Amino acid sequence: MIFYYALKTVSVASHITLEEVGADYEERPIDFGNAEQRSETYLGINPKGRVPALVTEGGILTETPAILLFLAQCFPESGMAPLSDPFALAKLQEFNAYLCATVHVAHAHRVRGARWVDDDAAIKAMQAKVPQTMGECFGLLEGEMFKGPWVMGEQYTICDPYLFTISNWLEGDGVDLVGFPPIAAHNQRMRERPAVTRVAAIHGV
Amino acid sequence: MIFYYALKTVSVASHITLEEVGADYEERPIDFGNAEQRSETYLGINPKGRVPALVTEGGILTETPAILLFLAQCFPESGMAPLSDPFALAKLQEFNAYLCATVHVAHAHRVRGARWVDDDAAIKAMQAKVPQTMGECFGLLEGEMFKGPWVMGEQYTICDPYLFTISNWLEGDGVDLVGFPPIAAHNQRMRERPAVTRVAAIHGV
Repeated sequence: MIFYYALKTVSVASHITLEEVGADYEERPIDFGNAEQRSETYLGINPKGRVPALVTEGGILTETPAILLFLAQCFPESGMAPLSDPFALAKLQEFNAYLCATVHVAHAHRVRGARWVDDDAAIKAMQAKVPQTMGECFGLLEGEMFKGPWVMGEQYTICDPYLFTISNWLEGDGVDLVGFPPIAAHNQRMRERPAVTRVAAIHGV
Repeated sequence: MIFYYALKTVSVASHITLEEVGADYEERPIDFGNAEQRSETYLGINPKGRVPALVTEGGILTETPAILLFLAQCFPESGMAPLSDPFALAKLQEFNAYLCATVHVAHAHRVRGARWVDDDAAIKAMQAKVPQTMGECFGLLEGEMFKGPWVMGEQYTICDPYLFTISNWLEGDGVDLVGFPPIAAHNQRMRERPAVTRVAAIHGV
């Protein structure tokens, strides 16, 4: 497999999971600083111009929740998803869908506002609300969704690298992770894992 | 099961899928006009204050991609997801993740701008860009993702009710569905299915 990623982006979640399951893959960094995600070559791999993208034997995959479940299903011995328990799998999917459609989106209003508006005043108005929206998201994650010690409880799953990835964005979003003790402790617990240590060093997170 | 939904919202996708798989369920409409999604009773079911929510024997589920895959997995004879083919399932998940995290979000900037900004000028700036962003999303869906006659090709899957649901929002978003002939034809093809006819009549879509 070939893994296209960009530093510190959501691709950290898939990167950690590739390491956790012991996948055989090549790393290909995409340089957002030079807008490489908009190059003709990369758009041929992912027409959305986003990361991550995973080139597999069957074809190319994008979208974090899809890549994570794919890896869990290709490497069932990793135990990273409760594949044969529909309700447990749905709770895992519910968590990941909330991260991708609500939490990541709230964060993106600070750094990618031009996706949704064209004028500078509106972009500033979006940025101003990010501490509030991200704080509310993490309040919900902590109060209603996170079980501990891992996201889904005793079993380490694909939700954990995903939460870790986004929790590292909080400081930049103007929210103190320390205000969410179970998630702050989860972030530290993640850093003790060899797969996370390796990927965190690559990304500088 | 008990299905909580609101008219014309994204809950249409889960509603159709419940019908398609032949699930035994009760319908409970939530009145957005009276902000019932923010009532104490409903927040006890879904603390996010959103729809849909599905009460199952195992517990409560939210988030459309999670509910759709749960139904496909509980009713495997429906054939609505390629459960044992990791790559095919990942392509299905990729499609649904794009709908929930990018397309639905683009649409929400017209009708739910207060999620991300507080001032009226910024809300108007968001609304102004929706025809462009939704047009770009449907261009990508048509050009890169939709196979035909169904989303994933010959097999009708959980992607189909989801695409149908969002394609019905296009007109309100200032985009003409006719500009995307394969998806306009898909919308008509969907309306020939008894499950869709019944749910479309309930929602008035």
